[in-house]
Amino acid sequence: MRIILDVMGGDNPPEEFVKGAYLAVKKYKEKITLVGDEKIISDALRDLRAPSAPFDIIDAPDFVSMEDDPMSITGAHAGSSMAVSLRELSSGGGDAVVSAGNTGALFTGATLIERRVKGVRRAALAMVIPFKNPILLLDCGANVSVTPEYLVQFAYLGKIYMERILGVDSPRVALLNNGAETHKGTPTVVEANKLLSDDENINFVGNIEGKDVPFGGCDVVVTDGFTGNIFLKTCEGMSNFMMARLTEKFFGGVSGKISAMLKKNDVSRVAKMFDAKEYGGAPFLGLAKPVIKAHGNSDARAVCAAIGQARKYVETNIIDEIASCADIFSKMKFAPISKRERTENE
Amino acid sequence: MRIILDVMGGDNPPEEFVKGAYLAVKKYKEKITLVGDEKIISDALRDLRAPSAPFDIIDAPDFVSMEDDPMSITGAHAGSSMAVSLRELSSGGGDAVVSAGNTGALFTGATLIERRVKGVRRAALAMVIPFKNPILLLDCGANVSVTPEYLVQFAYLGKIYMERILGVDSPRVALLNNGAETHKGTPTVVEANKLLSDDENINFVGNIEGKDVPFGGCDVVVTDGFTGNIFLKTCEGMSNFMMARLTEKFFGGVSGKISAMLKKNDVSRVAKMFDAKEYGGAPFLGLAKPVIKAHGNSDARAVCAAIGQARKYVETNIIDEIASCADIFSKMKFAPISKRERTENE
Repeated sequence: MRIILDVMGGDNPPEEFVKGAYLAVKKYKEKITLVGDEKIISDALRDLRAPSAPFDIIDAPDFVSMEDDPMSITGAHAGSSMAVSLRELSSGGGDAVVSAGNTGALFTGATLIERRVKGVRRAALAMVIPFKNPILLLDCGANVSVTPEYLVQFAYLGKIYMERILGVDSPRVALLNNGAETHKGTPTVVEANKLLSDDENINFVGNIEGKDVPFGGCDVVVTDGFTGNIFLKTCEGMSNFMMARLTEKFFGGVSGKISAMLKKNDVSRVAKMFDAKEYGGAPFLGLAKPVIKAHGNSDARAVCAAIGQARKYVETNIIDEIASCADIFSKMKFAPISKRERTENE
Repeated sequence: MRIILDVMGGDNPPEEFVKGAYLAVKKYKEKITLVGDEKIISDALRDLRAPSAPFDIIDAPDFVSMEDDPMSITGAHAGSSMAVSLRELSSGGGDAVVSAGNTGALFTGATLIERRVKGVRRAALAMVIPFKNPILLLDCGANVSVTPEYLVQFAYLGKIYMERILGVDSPRVALLNNGAETHKGTPTVVEANKLLSDDENINFVGNIEGKDVPFGGCDVVVTDGFTGNIFLKTCEGMSNFMMARLTEKFFGGVSGKISAMLKKNDVSRVAKMFDAKEYGGAPFLGLAKPVIKAHGNSDARAVCAAIGQARKYVETNIIDEIASCADIFSKMKFAPISKRERTENE
């Protein structure tokens, strides 16, 4: 197996990505292609005293910044490390791409270059959140607007991921909503609820509210990319906020002994639970080839985790399983998306 | 001043609401009209040994349940305690209504019976969240779908509330979004960002992500009712989840001494910060008369807090200030809401 790593995309310098790749090579014994500024990569490998054997290098010093228009990946930045990585995957030069770059550009580029599995209307960014039982949240931010049928497809994608990657039998799928009752939510969500209730292939457990998601009532949470992003980031913000307030309130006036105990204990793991760096990476489910989005702020450890995730994604043949749903997907009727709801990515 | 209290609406028995009213009478020395089953109310007042002087009672034993259609307040439940309370306010029998009942029904009934301030297209449910700096979140759930212009009006409503109720000078208004950049979000949010940036009356600080809301970058967070509800409930869920995990991880294997210290300390106040009961209540901003939604799960203490909030709302003349914006509102152009996005409340 060969993983293609875009080393120019994240907030951290390319050296951090090279270091992450080296950690991954030692851990997983797979081959890695490093895409980015060749000089920086060569220097970093030398500094790490890494044997160059498992690495191919493709020189592509240009990159898509966080401020760039997602469509620039097909225009001004068609020669960027991200675009070159995606084309390398498309032409068979590797088995998966890992990139920490601009999410919108990666989604646009991956959709245009790798294409979607037959019958899948939109790929979705999917992320495992380690609540008491891990849940898969999708879409986390690729599609700000959706139709009811896209949400139904997300349910299929999420179900397959949880079965294959986490070994969950008949995953319970829920719709993120502002109330448990079936009449609650936007018209899109109300309609998706009906479609999912009628779908025999999905173990649909109904609507779920934000306050109930952490407590294990479902395995897959389906939502549009806008709401999913708000949910995910709010979890992150609240985790940081609670830790800051607790540290201040509880430990501000108390002895350093307890503070030390806190550090020894694995409480800090709870705090890090929603640190995006810990997630490793998130696949775009529904694409015809594996593309994993690593967090923009990834350090070497996070890059290594994302590469590990890409490897598992390839090994478990999720894409074949998704492709086997083509018949079901071809029978779904897709309502046109209204003009106001159309995403800039279309 | 006279506050009209719907005692039949919440999850708790009417006796709890009568008790809350009695607490409020002692605390605020205002008159209260209790609307609900007269026999239950009289018995509860006798059990509390409450002097009956400050209470008027209106017999209305029917109520709107959480499962009832919001529109039932104009039909099958037109004689419910909620509907009777709203009509009593409308006819001048009091200065504000407090109800813990079905939010959709209260929103529908209040809009139809009290009507909106001239020029206001949609009232919004607004809630103060006690982060490091308190922020006002609106809409928290009244309008699942909005237009850009509704969001601009919410900014005005929120600004006035924060100025009058919390004394914040020139409140900083932000749009809840899936990214800080101006091109991020749904088309509705992108357009609202433009309108707010151009509005000289609003101190608009741009988009804000869920992870940044708790950390004091703004005073007012504007969003649609669907997203606002997801945000609020996710805060609540994460607060409960973090406390549960920390208690388990940190105190599971440690001595009861620290556990006791935790209780003595005001850490529990952090945990309760997102307990909806602590909020007291949330006004529907933009209505022509004060209507305060208390949490469905309100106990006597929460009912008393909601009555206190209603009192402050009346005293600070917020509605007059909102009405003074009629000229500005009349110049706003309102895009038609698309069919898919139209709420069931319209």
